[in-house]
Amino acid sequence: MRTPAPAAPPSPRSVVARNKLMRTAERLYAEKGFANVSVRQISEAAGQRNNSAVQYHFNGRDELIKAILSSYTDVIEERRIAMVEALLGTERAVTREEHFACLILPGVEYHIEAAAPTWGARFFAQAIVEPALREYVIQEQLNTPSLRILNTHGAVRRKDFAPGLFQRYSAMVRQLSVHAFAELEYDLANGRIEQREAEARWRLLGQDLITSLCGLSSALLGEAGR
Amino acid sequence: MRTPAPAAPPSPRSVVARNKLMRTAERLYAEKGFANVSVRQISEAAGQRNNSAVQYHFNGRDELIKAILSSYTDVIEERRIAMVEALLGTERAVTREEHFACLILPGVEYHIEAAAPTWGARFFAQAIVEPALREYVIQEQLNTPSLRILNTHGAVRRKDFAPGLFQRYSAMVRQLSVHAFAELEYDLANGRIEQREAEARWRLLGQDLITSLCGLSSALLGEAGR
Repeated sequence: MRTPAPAAPPSPRSVVARNKLMRTAERLYAEKGFANVSVRQISEAAGQRNNSAVQYHFNGRDELIKAILSSYTDVIEERRIAMVEALLGTERAVTREEHFACLILPGVEYHIEAAAPTWGARFFAQAIVEPALREYVIQEQLNTPSLRILNTHGAVRRKDFAPGLFQRYSAMVRQLSVHAFAELEYDLANGRIEQREAEARWRLLGQDLITSLCGLSSALLGEAGR
Repeated sequence: MRTPAPAAPPSPRSVVARNKLMRTAERLYAEKGFANVSVRQISEAAGQRNNSAVQYHFNGRDELIKAILSSYTDVIEERRIAMVEALLGTERAVTREEHFACLILPGVEYHIEAAAPTWGARFFAQAIVEPALREYVIQEQLNTPSLRILNTHGAVRRKDFAPGLFQRYSAMVRQLSVHAFAELEYDLANGRIEQREAEARWRLLGQDLITSLCGLSSALLGEAGR
């Protein structure tokens, strides 16, 4: 049974509590996995006296997860849309490197500026393989204005592909970027990669992904001399 | 606290029970996600009268998951090693298409022959993003003989890459193949793609992945005219 969300604008205290719950849940889920964290543990770790705080503020686990996803998507989208607009506002033709840089670098810059540790990428990777959330996550990401603009006016366009192929290409781009970001975040969190190397490794990941996506798209479009 | 596994060879009845628990868990986890299935539910759905059957037969959830993973890896490995040996036993040079075909096609054939529905790919994708299992899954896959042989004697070799790059390349190959397989399995299970198209879609996925990995590897090796 769902408690309806409070209809009145949330009080400042409620905003603070929601935010604390979201940050705590993001961290716990990233570190322990969705299967190993209860909503009660999240409430407790967020210092909420009421054990049903997640229920009260979010109407349950799935809505809490969706709220965290949106906040992550929003932060990336803000950077990406600025980059896309700056790029497409120029007169000259856009290169594929620039196209994929718009996809990849906003995430790279977010992780570098956030300073260690971050949890968003691991959280996102888990949400996108969770059966009940997967469809939602994919749709929410596809519907961002920056992606819609890039796919229409960028250097790799929907219309360049044979029927059906764009969707399959687009899924591969998503799979690669989501999980590559998550794996670097895991390696930094677990000390497999040292924290002082973090910035260099995020930049390297960005460059690897841009290079790989140029090669991948070119091959799928039948261009590359293989 | 862990109960030690029975030291005597398992009875036929125990083998049957273990197998039933594994198949049931694989299906439930694939359909509902690790977070939404308890070991008690698995025991019940597998028709075990004892609610601690998972504990008794596997010493808990993580060992159950590892057993399922191994059975999936073994099935794929059996096909892949035969393909690798047949390919490398020829005199002529191996092409990159053939190299990546060895990586990808055993999974494609498995899904086609198993006949719908399958659960292994979704199960695998969830295990590889679960913080407590991730490292184990990655190591187990890297250690298969077929991959070690391909990376040493195939058409894209460890030694072709600049220091550090092979590992990053190899992670991308894994991310793309694991999650692309899982997504097609989801789409078939959810009816987004119709069952009568299954075989054609698995073959298309295989070809897309081989093409993409040729382009990706070539770009990372600095060869492609981008």
